[in-house]
Amino acid sequence: MTSTPLAPGSAGTPADRAPVRAAYFVSDSTGITAETLGNALLANFPGFTFVRHTIPFVDSPEGAANVVRDIAAAHGRGLAPIVFTTTKDAAVDSVLAAAPATRIDLLGGHLTDLEGALGTTASEQLGQFHTVGDTERYFARMRAVEYAIEHDDGQSSRALDLADVIIIAPSRCGKTPTTMYLALQYGLLVANYPLTDDDFPTDGLPRLVAPYGARCFGLTTTPLRLSQVRHERRPNSTYSSLAQCTLELRRAEELYRRTRVPFLNSSTKSVEEMSAVILQTLKVRP
Amino acid sequence: MTSTPLAPGSAGTPADRAPVRAAYFVSDSTGITAETLGNALLANFPGFTFVRHTIPFVDSPEGAANVVRDIAAAHGRGLAPIVFTTTKDAAVDSVLAAAPATRIDLLGGHLTDLEGALGTTASEQLGQFHTVGDTERYFARMRAVEYAIEHDDGQSSRALDLADVIIIAPSRCGKTPTTMYLALQYGLLVANYPLTDDDFPTDGLPRLVAPYGARCFGLTTTPLRLSQVRHERRPNSTYSSLAQCTLELRRAEELYRRTRVPFLNSSTKSVEEMSAVILQTLKVRP
Repeated sequence: MTSTPLAPGSAGTPADRAPVRAAYFVSDSTGITAETLGNALLANFPGFTFVRHTIPFVDSPEGAANVVRDIAAAHGRGLAPIVFTTTKDAAVDSVLAAAPATRIDLLGGHLTDLEGALGTTASEQLGQFHTVGDTERYFARMRAVEYAIEHDDGQSSRALDLADVIIIAPSRCGKTPTTMYLALQYGLLVANYPLTDDDFPTDGLPRLVAPYGARCFGLTTTPLRLSQVRHERRPNSTYSSLAQCTLELRRAEELYRRTRVPFLNSSTKSVEEMSAVILQTLKVRP
Repeated sequence: MTSTPLAPGSAGTPADRAPVRAAYFVSDSTGITAETLGNALLANFPGFTFVRHTIPFVDSPEGAANVVRDIAAAHGRGLAPIVFTTTKDAAVDSVLAAAPATRIDLLGGHLTDLEGALGTTASEQLGQFHTVGDTERYFARMRAVEYAIEHDDGQSSRALDLADVIIIAPSRCGKTPTTMYLALQYGLLVANYPLTDDDFPTDGLPRLVAPYGARCFGLTTTPLRLSQVRHERRPNSTYSSLAQCTLELRRAEELYRRTRVPFLNSSTKSVEEMSAVILQTLKVRP
């Protein structure tokens, strides 16, 4: 710690401006909500490095006391911790409040606002229940993931008529992760089909997917990136050469335009972004 | 709309207490953060039915005006909308503020708190960038999903030594969706292996996974639920009979205990919850 006085108008203490900080995501459940929103908030501060810790299932004052010890240790190492919490139990919250850290309560204030809007109080025990809706969602996801595995990479056309979405693209443009994300996150039946040399002599869509043109969505990428990804699989092959990648992407994009299949460049998009665009374009959000 | 006066002490207007409400998740990006946190908040109000709408990529005042029109229409139908927003642009926000709805800003206040804690202001342009870290994460997820497909259901042992996690369980206990979630969400290499009759004569773990006992995690469920799930695949078979399911689960749980493989009952847990427990138990959180 330095004792240099801060310039007038600057905020916080020197420790508050340290470029490496500890970030804790503390939850009474899985921690996924705390991680998702906490990381979305931290992404606005690219000048800092955050050492992240997710601590799920903190549902007792004893559990909370362990977390406070961890946070105090990070504070002792000069990491001025930020703590994102989604805990709902008052006893747990009051223990966490004692941690030497900036605490950001991701639920509390919003819950109070919602109670006002709905004219009722939140039933505190919730989040523990496993409802019929959960079971249905579970089965839907299980079916969707199995469907995606069976129909990955054009392996099967058995139940292609049931597909909500069919992703088409040359090899290694990102079909599989996007397929799987749509299946898991939304329970959609998603198939994918690789465009190969055999698919280009004809004018229309490949024979297998042609009956379902309205459910098709194309992916493309940049030749350089495709070459890089293919190189990982088959180094120094024709398959991974820049010339071959350029040719395949050009033919694929021409096919998408000719057959009016909507498409997207995957090179600067995350799996989540591509999934959101596909849902919106094909209007299949469940 | 009724004009019955509210009892003293009750909050809000009669429309505020209507059991069916519209919920909007409005984002300038994918909408996933808004959906995740919004749904976590709404789960506390089980007495209400929420008609949900996710509207991603709202990044212009014109886009926001369209959303306000949708919200106004829902309001006109008596659905007293609740609007969760994760938009960051001031012009977009001021358009949304005009919607006839309860607005819950999931980012704004927290961002201000974070700016105070970090002694700096958020760079507004962020969230748009696609960084080297994103590309690395993309490749890691792609590899992880492909690994999961290759090593699903004991189909391959080619690279089992690379697995971060090996999920073992009798058929239809939920191995596949949990495997895929761990791969997609965390980029972990996850294999899964089905326990069958062949695996029980010996005392130890099945031969294929025995070298990697410390990375194994078992799943179990209730006989009734297992029978129900199996019945969907093969109705009225021995495979789906309650007697067979009871036997297989009992033998699997004995195996987990004998070989000290940690395990979990999947019947009352979501895929997210199981994943969080597995990460915590095996200490493989990336």
